[in-house]
Amino acid sequence: MDETNDPKLVSFLQVEEGSHFPIQNLPFGVFQPQGMEPRVGVAIGEWILDLKVCEERGLLEGQGVFQQGKLNGFLGQGRAAWRETRRRVSQLLRADEPELRDNEELRKAALHEQKNCQMLLPMEIGDYTDFYSSRYHATNVGTMLRGADQALNANWLHLPVAYHGRASSVVISGTEIRRPQGQTKPDTAPAPLFGPCKALDFELEMGFVVGPGNRLGEPIAAAEAEEHIFGWVLVNDWSARDIQKWEYQPLGPFLSKSFATTVSPWVVTLDALAPFRVPGEVQDPPPLAYLQTSGNQAYNVELEAWLTPAGGTAQRISQSNLRYLYWNSAQQLAHHTINGCNLRPGDLLGTGTISGPTPNSLGCLLELTQGGRSPLTLSDGTPRRFLEDGDQLTLTGWCPGAGYRVGFGQASGVILPAK
Amino acid sequence: MDETNDPKLVSFLQVEEGSHFPIQNLPFGVFQPQGMEPRVGVAIGEWILDLKVCEERGLLEGQGVFQQGKLNGFLGQGRAAWRETRRRVSQLLRADEPELRDNEELRKAALHEQKNCQMLLPMEIGDYTDFYSSRYHATNVGTMLRGADQALNANWLHLPVAYHGRASSVVISGTEIRRPQGQTKPDTAPAPLFGPCKALDFELEMGFVVGPGNRLGEPIAAAEAEEHIFGWVLVNDWSARDIQKWEYQPLGPFLSKSFATTVSPWVVTLDALAPFRVPGEVQDPPPLAYLQTSGNQAYNVELEAWLTPAGGTAQRISQSNLRYLYWNSAQQLAHHTINGCNLRPGDLLGTGTISGPTPNSLGCLLELTQGGRSPLTLSDGTPRRFLEDGDQLTLTGWCPGAGYRVGFGQASGVILPAK
Repeated sequence: MDETNDPKLVSFLQVEEGSHFPIQNLPFGVFQPQGMEPRVGVAIGEWILDLKVCEERGLLEGQGVFQQGKLNGFLGQGRAAWRETRRRVSQLLRADEPELRDNEELRKAALHEQKNCQMLLPMEIGDYTDFYSSRYHATNVGTMLRGADQALNANWLHLPVAYHGRASSVVISGTEIRRPQGQTKPDTAPAPLFGPCKALDFELEMGFVVGPGNRLGEPIAAAEAEEHIFGWVLVNDWSARDIQKWEYQPLGPFLSKSFATTVSPWVVTLDALAPFRVPGEVQDPPPLAYLQTSGNQAYNVELEAWLTPAGGTAQRISQSNLRYLYWNSAQQLAHHTINGCNLRPGDLLGTGTISGPTPNSLGCLLELTQGGRSPLTLSDGTPRRFLEDGDQLTLTGWCPGAGYRVGFGQASGVILPAK
Repeated sequence: MDETNDPKLVSFLQVEEGSHFPIQNLPFGVFQPQGMEPRVGVAIGEWILDLKVCEERGLLEGQGVFQQGKLNGFLGQGRAAWRETRRRVSQLLRADEPELRDNEELRKAALHEQKNCQMLLPMEIGDYTDFYSSRYHATNVGTMLRGADQALNANWLHLPVAYHGRASSVVISGTEIRRPQGQTKPDTAPAPLFGPCKALDFELEMGFVVGPGNRLGEPIAAAEAEEHIFGWVLVNDWSARDIQKWEYQPLGPFLSKSFATTVSPWVVTLDALAPFRVPGEVQDPPPLAYLQTSGNQAYNVELEAWLTPAGGTAQRISQSNLRYLYWNSAQQLAHHTINGCNLRPGDLLGTGTISGPTPNSLGCLLELTQGGRSPLTLSDGTPRRFLEDGDQLTLTGWCPGAGYRVGFGQASGVILPAK
């Protein structure tokens, strides 16, 4: 095992029990301390280690990438640079290393309290792609649309279905989400109507962030995929189900998705996730050769969705797990590039809604309420079919270590009324 | 009429008859003279006026945007700045203005022969959207897929259908196009196959380039659309029809499009197109209020597609016109943002394949050959169903002025064999 993942490692900084950011995690993000420029940092407990300052003081060698207000430069450096940075950050934060621990002036300069910093979108996203890779989700949605016999389209078990998403409207956790307006066509209406979305939904997803890209025309083999994947974030691909139903044929979802997608601010690296690799779902029929992978390609990430009505209390409405994906990230990346499509550092590839096999593991309200026909009952007794104005929807997730969590923080947003 | 559009205007530089770039056009692009950095320029005849040099010499006020290797800074400045720059460039190039005409040293510094320069992608494209706005095209394709009775989906006459395209693989004219590989499933095959695309197609399109964007959550009204549209280019959204057929349900085209999209290098401004505005197609049923526009919203741009087999001669295989679009650009832009989706300077919005009402005005081989069933006969007598390795496909287009053309140059690419 990589020494940075040793469960016994502790930092000289106190990390609360249950924190998502123990020294075994060390996720990367972009933050802005009050009155300063945005820069790259690493979360540790309730703190952020400022890599810009670390580089300026000669503690790290970043060739300037930590001075940027986005991770893209670092992403482009590749796995060897990521590993070396992680190793060095782990060393600086260890309880038995005096270099930072015993230098008060340096600690004051290089450590910020998270509560005093604003988190920013961690990377500039050139392209955002969203897959549709949970078999449970695709089956549930397909059953609602086409009946149980034809729930999965003919292609679904042969390739990881995906669509191009909107990069401009990917926002950082905490950004308020304006209820979209648009065209809908209720079954009973003779013509389409215009107005605010009446079936606003969340989607419990994760996504991975691309490191070094590929040249146009040169696919990335599944076996090489991990050289191109930096790490993972939580993703909520907010969806307007009524708009989607009317618009999506024949070219797929468009305005029903492009009003907002929320991501969590801290990117958890593949190296931090290594201890939590597990076998994925069994794939039958076996995929074509370019989609074949070996080893443990899934990750045990416990996922939750919490709903907080305006003025109410938070309640958990879904418990799922990243391991429920049918198609893994190496397959997604190999498929995405098999036609020669070029990826670039900072591209975001979402999993699609991650639903599991049980009723409490469904990853969106469309499934949880059967399209609104079976409302959830909130703790105050009121029914909830889809999201209402003032609702806060929060995704969270973590890998369960022995006595610690490698966590993703949260991806959260409050619904504002339509304009 | 704006004086810059006066048909009688002439430049002190000789402009060949039939040139796409008379002084009435003045399109903007990004070019790289040998051994120099990329910069912004304006095409005039066989020449390029170097706006970086013009700004450095105090002939233009650009606040540095012409020094950039992309148009994005200029795009963000908005219509007033575009107009003023166009007016000033027109003045500098006029036959009766001595400032540039009579200054040999300045002319040598500020004018480059196009043949000595490399054209680059004119803007950094944050997001690329492709519409599906020719009724003729949608009807032809829909008839092939679903029969004549259900050719248009129920939504088609109510909203401009679109999908998110891939921004990373938009390339400049002249870039070679590698034949994509991927999964297909012939009707007779029991399982999907892997291999090179066997139904490679072009799509005769145009696209408009976004200027100032909008904030997330704040739609752009159709009446305001032109404040946000800088100009137009030719677009070829190369398509792998066999891959598309297998992959596109339910989320739309993905790998069948994302291997490459070719654009022409010179962006023709709305001001240059103003004399060529014409009424669009009649819209029945009338669109919802947010999609209503008035005045002449279409443009008379004659479009052609030319095919040159390896070692053969070029032949025209399609003649269409931008005016055949059912949904106009103001409607496309209003629809795109009605849900609050934010556009950014440099975004590209494609029209979709522009087919006309006649057999020779079909904008892709899928339509021209009826899905390959009725091959074209090339001038050497050979049949052509879809694009073959070595084929060059070139789009061109121009507005027919009185004695001059406001042209778009070309969008061209040669097909390389699959790897």
